[in-house]
Parts: sequence; C-alpha cells; structure tokens
Amino acid sequence: MFGDMMNMMGKLKETQQKIESTKLRLDTVLIDEKSNDGLLQVTLTANRKIKAITIDESLLEDKEQLEDYLILVLNKAIEKATNINETELAAVAKEGMPNIPGMDLFK
Amino acid sequence: MFGDMMNMMGKLKETQQKIESTKLRLDTVLIDEKSNDGLLQVTLTANRKIKAITIDESLLEDKEQLEDYLILVLNKAIEKATNINETELAAVAKEGMPNIPGMDLFK
Repeated sequence: MFGDMMNMMGKLKETQQKIESTKLRLDTVLIDEKSNDGLLQVTLTANRKIKAITIDESLLEDKEQLEDYLILVLNKAIEKATNINETELAAVAKEGMPNIPGMDLFK
Repeated sequence: MFGDMMNMMGKLKETQQKIESTKLRLDTVLIDEKSNDGLLQVTLTANRKIKAITIDESLLEDKEQLEDYLILVLNKAIEKATNINETELAAVAKEGMPNIPGMDLFK
C-alpha cells in the first residue's frame, strides 16, 4: 500500500515535469491566422502570445472595420492556440492519471 | 476499499462539474487593458475572448506603431486573463485533488 503510494507520487511528479516541458515547447509552436481577404495577418504561439500583427495599409482607412477585423482574426487565432494548448497538455496529463471510465477531467 | 474508490469517483465527478461551471463563469469576467497613453483599449473575457478593441484615430497615422501597440496591449491583456483563468480553475481543481506535499500540478 505504501509502495503504491510512492509509485503514484513518482508518477505524479513525472507528469508535473512533463507538463512544464510541454508548456515550454508550446512557446515554439506558431499559429498563423488571417482575414479571408488576407489584409490582416496575425502570428501567435500555442501559449497565446502574439508575435506579429500585419495590417494592410488599406485597412487604416476605416477604423471600425479595422477594429472588427482585429477582433475576428485574433479570436480565431487565440481559439486555435487554445485548442492546441489544451490538447497537448491534456495528452500529457492523461498519461499520468488513472483511467476511470466516465471521467474526463482533461477534455 | 471499494467504498473509498466510489467516494473518490464521486469527488472527481463533482470537481469536473465545478470546473465546467467555472469555465462558463469566466466568460462573464471582463478584463480591460490599455496602452500607457490610453490611445488603445482592449476588453476581453477571462477565457481570452476579445470583446472590444478601441483604436484612437491618431494611431492610424503610423501602421508600424499601431501594430506594436496592439501586440503590447493585447499580450498584457491576454496574460492577465490567463492568470485569472488558471488561478480560478486551479482553485477548483485543487479542492478535488488529494493534498500531497511537494506536489503542485495546478500551479
């Protein structure tokens, strides 16, 4: 019983380390997203840090349109990043957790 | 022993439900962020969904500066949102996990 406990703690510690290294790796995963017309482009990491925003000159003529474009494209990009982030971390976390049918803490 | 197991599963299920309801609640938590000079303002939820971007007309004169402003202010806002998000979810997850000294999966 005590052996099981030590075993579980070792496994948890290992999972914790894998989670940390996965988080670091996600800093190097880049996601590109753009508006349908290609006039606005953004690049961010899978940890949702924005690396680049490129605005076409023509978008500067209409402030409201530019604001809408930014919200739309950035939200699409952030959503993609979050999906990659959660999928990667969930995969690592799941490895380290007991498999209980009907339980899915890391979906 | 089987009772303990059922107990743990019940606890996990409860935690899972609390995590889901916390995620929903975070949609209603809004974070405002702006550039030091106040010319750029953004609002996003604690789930990192951008709700509003307000660009002062004067920023439209310099595309590169605007792009830099956006990256800076958005990253600050996203970081704040992530901190709130992780703190809230970690608090819920921690409640539902056994407390093991030296282990902090949800930091």
